[in-house]
Amino acid sequence: MRPNPLRDRLLNNERSVGCWLSSPSSINAEVAARVGFDYTCIDMQHGLVDYSSIVPMLQAINLSTTTATVRVPWNEPGIIGKVLDAGAMAVIVPMVNTQAEAEQVIERGYYHPKGGRSSGPIRVQPLEDPDYPEIANDHVLMIPMIETIEAVENIDEILSVDGVDAIYVGPMDLSVSMGLGRAKEDPPFVEALDHIAARCAAHGVYPGIHGNPDIIHDRFGRGFKMVTVQSDLAAMRLNLVESLAIGRGEGVDDAGGGGY
Amino acid sequence: MRPNPLRDRLLNNERSVGCWLSSPSSINAEVAARVGFDYTCIDMQHGLVDYSSIVPMLQAINLSTTTATVRVPWNEPGIIGKVLDAGAMAVIVPMVNTQAEAEQVIERGYYHPKGGRSSGPIRVQPLEDPDYPEIANDHVLMIPMIETIEAVENIDEILSVDGVDAIYVGPMDLSVSMGLGRAKEDPPFVEALDHIAARCAAHGVYPGIHGNPDIIHDRFGRGFKMVTVQSDLAAMRLNLVESLAIGRGEGVDDAGGGGY
Amino acid sequence: MRPNPLRDRLLNNERSVGCWLSSPSSINAEVAARVGFDYTCIDMQHGLVDYSSIVPMLQAINLSTTTATVRVPWNEPGIIGKVLDAGAMAVIVPMVNTQAEAEQVIERGYYHPKGGRSSGPIRVQPLEDPDYPEIANDHVLMIPMIETIEAVENIDEILSVDGVDAIYVGPMDLSVSMGLGRAKEDPPFVEALDHIAARCAAHGVYPGIHGNPDIIHDRFGRGFKMVTVQSDLAAMRLNLVESLAIGRGEGVDDAGGGGY
Amino acid sequence: MRPNPLRDRLLNNERSVGCWLSSPSSINAEVAARVGFDYTCIDMQHGLVDYSSIVPMLQAINLSTTTATVRVPWNEPGIIGKVLDAGAMAVIVPMVNTQAEAEQVIERGYYHPKGGRSSGPIRVQPLEDPDYPEIANDHVLMIPMIETIEAVENIDEILSVDGVDAIYVGPMDLSVSMGLGRAKEDPPFVEALDHIAARCAAHGVYPGIHGNPDIIHDRFGRGFKMVTVQSDLAAMRLNLVESLAIGRGEGVDDAGGGGY
Amino acid sequence: MRPNPLRDRLLNNERSVGCWLSSPSSINAEVAARVGFDYTCIDMQHGLVDYSSIVPMLQAINLSTTTATVRVPWNEPGIIGKVLDAGAMAVIVPMVNTQAEAEQVIERGYYHPKGGRSSGPIRVQPLEDPDYPEIANDHVLMIPMIETIEAVENIDEILSVDGVDAIYVGPMDLSVSMGLGRAKEDPPFVEALDHIAARCAAHGVYPGIHGNPDIIHDRFGRGFKMVTVQSDLAAMRLNLVESLAIGRGEGVDDAGGGGY
Amino acid sequence: MRPNPLRDRLLNNERSVGCWLSSPSSINAEVAARVGFDYTCIDMQHGLVDYSSIVPMLQAINLSTTTATVRVPWNEPGIIGKVLDAGAMAVIVPMVNTQAEAEQVIERGYYHPKGGRSSGPIRVQPLEDPDYPEIANDHVLMIPMIETIEAVENIDEILSVDGVDAIYVGPMDLSVSMGLGRAKEDPPFVEALDHIAARCAAHGVYPGIHGNPDIIHDRFGRGFKMVTVQSDLAAMRLNLVESLAIGRGEGVDDAGGGGY
Repeated sequence: MRPNPLRDRLLNNERSVGCWLSSPSSINAEVAARVGFDYTCIDMQHGLVDYSSIVPMLQAINLSTTTATVRVPWNEPGIIGKVLDAGAMAVIVPMVNTQAEAEQVIERGYYHPKGGRSSGPIRVQPLEDPDYPEIANDHVLMIPMIETIEAVENIDEILSVDGVDAIYVGPMDLSVSMGLGRAKEDPPFVEALDHIAARCAAHGVYPGIHGNPDIIHDRFGRGFKMVTVQSDLAAMRLNLVESLAIGRGEGVDDAGGGGY
Repeated sequence: MRPNPLRDRLLNNERSVGCWLSSPSSINAEVAARVGFDYTCIDMQHGLVDYSSIVPMLQAINLSTTTATVRVPWNEPGIIGKVLDAGAMAVIVPMVNTQAEAEQVIERGYYHPKGGRSSGPIRVQPLEDPDYPEIANDHVLMIPMIETIEAVENIDEILSVDGVDAIYVGPMDLSVSMGLGRAKEDPPFVEALDHIAARCAAHGVYPGIHGNPDIIHDRFGRGFKMVTVQSDLAAMRLNLVESLAIGRGEGVDDAGGGGY
Repeated sequence: MRPNPLRDRLLNNERSVGCWLSSPSSINAEVAARVGFDYTCIDMQHGLVDYSSIVPMLQAINLSTTTATVRVPWNEPGIIGKVLDAGAMAVIVPMVNTQAEAEQVIERGYYHPKGGRSSGPIRVQPLEDPDYPEIANDHVLMIPMIETIEAVENIDEILSVDGVDAIYVGPMDLSVSMGLGRAKEDPPFVEALDHIAARCAAHGVYPGIHGNPDIIHDRFGRGFKMVTVQSDLAAMRLNLVESLAIGRGEGVDDAGGGGY
Repeated sequence: MRPNPLRDRLLNNERSVGCWLSSPSSINAEVAARVGFDYTCIDMQHGLVDYSSIVPMLQAINLSTTTATVRVPWNEPGIIGKVLDAGAMAVIVPMVNTQAEAEQVIERGYYHPKGGRSSGPIRVQPLEDPDYPEIANDHVLMIPMIETIEAVENIDEILSVDGVDAIYVGPMDLSVSMGLGRAKEDPPFVEALDHIAARCAAHGVYPGIHGNPDIIHDRFGRGFKMVTVQSDLAAMRLNLVESLAIGRGEGVDDAGGGGY
Repeated sequence: MRPNPLRDRLLNNERSVGCWLSSPSSINAEVAARVGFDYTCIDMQHGLVDYSSIVPMLQAINLSTTTATVRVPWNEPGIIGKVLDAGAMAVIVPMVNTQAEAEQVIERGYYHPKGGRSSGPIRVQPLEDPDYPEIANDHVLMIPMIETIEAVENIDEILSVDGVDAIYVGPMDLSVSMGLGRAKEDPPFVEALDHIAARCAAHGVYPGIHGNPDIIHDRFGRGFKMVTVQSDLAAMRLNLVESLAIGRGEGVDDAGGGGY
Repeated sequence: MRPNPLRDRLLNNERSVGCWLSSPSSINAEVAARVGFDYTCIDMQHGLVDYSSIVPMLQAINLSTTTATVRVPWNEPGIIGKVLDAGAMAVIVPMVNTQAEAEQVIERGYYHPKGGRSSGPIRVQPLEDPDYPEIANDHVLMIPMIETIEAVENIDEILSVDGVDAIYVGPMDLSVSMGLGRAKEDPPFVEALDHIAARCAAHGVYPGIHGNPDIIHDRFGRGFKMVTVQSDLAAMRLNLVESLAIGRGEGVDDAGGGGY
């Protein structure tokens, strides 16, 4: 098997820093993957990517050693199987709110007897290992997202599901679902984060969360181990805004959120 | 927010005329969007389009002021979120036959507290408004399709769902589901149309329907407010058939349906 | 209607030999379709193909007379409708384990009154027949896959569903679900194959199965009628391995599985 | 060899009516090719098409019997070879102003000994005939464009080149190069057209010209034999403009040129 | 005509700051174009872009008001015409070393009588102005590149060509052609830059040059008026390198050149 | 620098065995590149590939160690620069018939002072080496094709050009240009091959030639060192023809040439 830094760090309980890809571009993917992140995640949910771009993007990511990761659009068996067969070594699954939904994630991403994933690892077997079908269950990471108040309420049931070795918090959706809007550092929200991190520690589950450069060390400090620090499009836009300001001889305006 | 003619006309109870895009082409989309329709709808259900074409098509449509509309392939949360994040301001959802299915449409297309749409408006926020997450619920139109006899029987329950401000009738499927085949102007079918329009008027819901140039004024006359008059491929084919007949010095054959 | 060799052979209970397309290439598809297989199946489940490649691939396949076939990624109504509208004349649906799931396959692939397929045959109607909507139910083949021990246990219920005229066995998944791993010629597995073939004969259903050149005549001998013998990528790789060995002046190594 | 209506009509000195494809869409191409034109020409010069779209467009065109024709962007050997290898049976070459340039067209499009086309008919040989390399020179049409005053002055030298069996007039460029702007029906322009048609008749060369439905019979009347009557994008736009006007209950505005 | 900030600034002899696009992505293009640069240039020479990406990228750029600019791969008439027809309002042409080559640039990019550009502005006419064919010569900028010692020696002849209103220096190639390698701030190189800027001032030609944030004010100080400050891929990579270093809690390594 | 087996074998005067890619598919490319050929050549001349597919195909090839090679469509500076910048380590240039044309190949492919290649190695520099601009001339192979009787007559002048370290014979075109048609093993043709190989040996140039499994050892025996043994599409088709014959229980028909 090729190196899988995200899984190695999970096994060692070390911190992982990741990058997000929101654009369906194998070139953005190659540039980002070379930077040295522990994992590089193609976002099929909110990113502008669908399956037709996944194969060339994974080919580009596989030129580096970062863990090839995909966030699927939804907890749906067809797409989970397809991204695994194409070479994803970690799969983030949105909106897992109950134990039953977490069990579906495991069922759909792991082979018998751990789950019921259909066999046909067309690209990943020659890429990773001739014995991939026998060993995949020990290498692939299926990562449910915790991003609603309902999921927080069900956190122990979700973390107890056999096969859930990591989770990933969607802070924007969590804050919105708590009625706090996008001002997501209100005390109840922060308490929810701390609660999630504490329960992960108790269950021996590796806790991940979406972040940015301003907030990543706060998140690590709260016990999160896997934090996404930047995306391809936000990185591009922020640097271009700064570069234009330099060119104009002006101070940098607040670069704004931009949504990327 | 950019102009949204379909929503403005809905608010004013004025008639809207729309165009259908069945081809995955950002060039067809740019040409059609320039013509001046109130809405231009990319058809992901029966059209030959999937998500990989949606972003360039929406970019092309956004060069004009027509309301960027998408018909998704099915009432499925992943794709509804993706087309909204990419910039659709109206989403038509096929085969909504029950109140529960209509509630799903609202749940999947609107943010908390109106629904549970996941937050990540990657393209639409910079395009439309920095405050898009806060105001989207007041601008996006989620439009269930009424296209089976079951839906007609459940029409009051569907129209009563909070958030259903418009519906869209699929006349072909409705006629077929009534056992009338494609000869869809039989009295029971027309009575069903009249019933739908009347119940929409009673509920204050804006009624839409698929049409063509021969039938659009009949539909307006029956109380429908939003009628699609033509598609990119049918328009092209019809004019080419006429042009060839002129070139041959012949009368125009019956251009036929062609299915486009 | 164009020729449909797979259906003709089914009606005559003759053997069919098919080809699998795992790559999203209209050029691979044109080359393979010219070879003369009875059916050529685009694999959207384990192949590296999604809908954005389906239309050009079907255009390429339609240059020959082989039956244009698609395996969809999952038993999901949106994609079943889309591949039929685009021109598939046979659709293979994975992981059909119960009578209810088999009924869904029929419901989603056939028009009223046989099922509830939505009407909008945008490409297939002009391609195949102006009366396609009226006659499609008599020409399209909806083929559930039997690929788990659960499905074998439910085989009579599945084969009894009205509209199930053929099934297709996924031997790898079947063997894995039986706890036999990939060594799939163990007696219990072979007994399961024989049982499936026998029940198909009893129900008058045409039994298909995935195969390869080494095993195809064993499968025919056991009563299977429709066997896929090779895929585009496996064919390419096997010949290239042999060609390189010739170029090196070496014997051919075991070409290995490769997963294609 | 497959039917080649343009060449058959040339040999019989019958009139041909053609269609232009300006959009890089295999779907537009399939729709247009089904209409029944004698030739369907993909425009790589002013159309929005490059080579990456040529193969799927030719696959789509080959589903009908219209002559697959390509206008290349320029008189350049690489692209002429590529479109022929991909399946073009007629190639229109812009801006041929001198006898030497006409000789280049022949050199680049025909095999030895007529020219020096490089051998490698990768798609067209299996499509058309196993003996394509031996017989292609008798089937392919290489068609220089006459579209400057310089070309008109050199018309006899150009028409005398062995292998020039047809030419194609670009009326817009010709009018502009004569200093007449786009008002291209001025007497000197019409005289130039008549002169070209007369010289073609004298040399036994089949004269083609770009047109539209209003002007096609004027062109036929002046002796032109091959007239393009409409394009995919102009057809679509014209019908959509009319359809919107009907929907609005208005007369059709002048649809305008639009440039398509 | 839409706004054309680059041309307005040229007419007012004001400084322009530009952005470079090296990736064939309409999404990168939309993000970059929103930032507010005076011009945004798609690089078809050293960027990873060819014509098949130009149309969607121009559609994306046209959503903002930045001048849509293209650097073509070479001084070749086919591609110059194609990018202009698709909507480029400025075209940068590499490796113009002599007066004759500068005259070709003008001939290929302007209509009669200024040049011989072929007429067929398929996308740009509806986008920009119905009278585009008559007024394009007053709006389009054709910009030869000065990037060899030979071009510097011929600078007065090149700047004297009627229609050359701006030039663009390629500093890397210039330095290399002077035998100075990539250490391009050696005195002879800087003297060459100063000479070019001085001769532009003397001829009333707007001088442009490739740059970066560190060097842009040096270039403005030397009299250059149009400086490209950053590219999509370099911007993305630089910010990702910084973001990863923050995530690791390390200082930023030298981000290195990377070649983007 | 990454491994470059073709150059290593050239330096050691060892035999190389190569693969040809005729299809614009990054998946075919990944499968073929894994097989273990010394070089894998994307054919932009007669293959169905243009630049838009080159970047993902090179990304796929770079997952293996085979030398990434491209045959450009023609001896044109724009495309030679583009494929080198994208990562080609060897470039085969068709139809080099004279010393002047061979000098152009060197001028276009090597940096100053060996040639005049424009600097901008956007993908290949980060992929291969930060010092790529300084060392590329020692690693890239520019390989002119010898494929006409004129080139054979000029063979000593071509082989004498500084920088020509390898050539590649196009046997089909050579045979045709000698008036021998496709029956290319006639004595004069074979004598021409022997003459080319002998002159290469005399000049210390590595001689390559197109081949197939039947003929590769004849070519090696005549002194050729670099022989292409198979292509992606021919490999696929040949194995599929055999597989179908097995499935039918028939002997293998003559698989025919097919032109791939």
